[in-house]
Amino acid sequence: MSAIRIVLCRPSHPGNIGAAARAMKTMGLTDLRLVAPARALAPKDEWMATHGADVLASARTHATLAAAIADCAAAFALSARAREWSPQVLDLRAAAGRAATIDAPVAFVFGNEAAGLTNDELFACQHLVHIPADPENSSLNLAQAVQVVCYELRMARGATVPAMRAEMPATVADLEGLYAHLEEAARESGFMAPGSKLRERWRRLFSRVPGLEREEVNILRGLLKSLTKK
Amino acid sequence: MSAIRIVLCRPSHPGNIGAAARAMKTMGLTDLRLVAPARALAPKDEWMATHGADVLASARTHATLAAAIADCAAAFALSARAREWSPQVLDLRAAAGRAATIDAPVAFVFGNEAAGLTNDELFACQHLVHIPADPENSSLNLAQAVQVVCYELRMARGATVPAMRAEMPATVADLEGLYAHLEEAARESGFMAPGSKLRERWRRLFSRVPGLEREEVNILRGLLKSLTKK
Repeated sequence: MSAIRIVLCRPSHPGNIGAAARAMKTMGLTDLRLVAPARALAPKDEWMATHGADVLASARTHATLAAAIADCAAAFALSARAREWSPQVLDLRAAAGRAATIDAPVAFVFGNEAAGLTNDELFACQHLVHIPADPENSSLNLAQAVQVVCYELRMARGATVPAMRAEMPATVADLEGLYAHLEEAARESGFMAPGSKLRERWRRLFSRVPGLEREEVNILRGLLKSLTKK
Repeated sequence: MSAIRIVLCRPSHPGNIGAAARAMKTMGLTDLRLVAPARALAPKDEWMATHGADVLASARTHATLAAAIADCAAAFALSARAREWSPQVLDLRAAAGRAATIDAPVAFVFGNEAAGLTNDELFACQHLVHIPADPENSSLNLAQAVQVVCYELRMARGATVPAMRAEMPATVADLEGLYAHLEEAARESGFMAPGSKLRERWRRLFSRVPGLEREEVNILRGLLKSLTKK
């Protein structure tokens, strides 16, 4: 993820650079570049960066977009606006997948909050990337767009969430033991009428539980035993 | 998307509710619920909502999480923290996929900015959802988490970006015409030495252009013609 650069062109609103730095940090990105920022960093940027303070502190500033991406193998321009003429258009997921195949620095480039990217900035990049959104309201807040992009970049590299504690899965024999126990309890208590579909119903129910655990089956059987004891 | 509810439990920071409303609006979601908000809406919420002002204005407030999700078929709790005991853990993409299969209201539930969800709130939901993130810095800003979740929900429903203008694709015959033209120009100008691999090189280059257009081939041939005219 360290080879991925986030470039903010002419950011203007206090706090947005900090919020972008935080968004990057949550996804493991660290290389932030500012192109001709409209204002110096504000105290609100420091505050919004929270644990991304180091990303903010190490951000480099460039006079032009060309200088910020000169050493990149590809630059992807984010824009919500369709344009008649543009570089190749990709949706974000396709762009993140393509970036993941490039073994060299790549840049994702964001425009000014109000005006977006200029045409010159757009054509300085090789790809135009849209984040799929509601066509009537397709303009994301800058830092929120950075967050979604960094998330997809992480997902494109096969990110997963930590596995749950490993539990012993219930076997077919465990399940059949439960079903037999349920049937016995239902018959003895008079709950199971002749022609009842109860057997099919609880098989259908428990078959749908993903990763049913032996301990969960044992808890149900323990309760049945407790309820039916003489 | 109108069947998907975003629930914010005890939000406290001014502006975050508005930013969440904007994030929802960009992805076509409209049903926002607040559970026991720590403060009234602030002017900053209105300002942050921008074109999501209608989502903000129609947000309903509930005293408890249970009341906010009582009519939902499933509730998905967002948390960055792993817990020893929790509902079933899903990553966001899997959760969005599952939500897309449910033909009834479903809720995505977010905790307080500082403290997250309580254990009681967590177990009021049927699923615990993690956004894959850097393990050392896994806490997203509230509105940014809402943005990523709403984006995945939209993607799970097969969102795409608008197609580019339809151009006539270059055919094999167009390409062979270009290659013949290039070879003629290279031979006549003396650029093509005996044993040259130029023919293979330009085939390799132009074969890699996705969606190469007839008009693009014609522009290249026009330039060659202009350069080689006597």
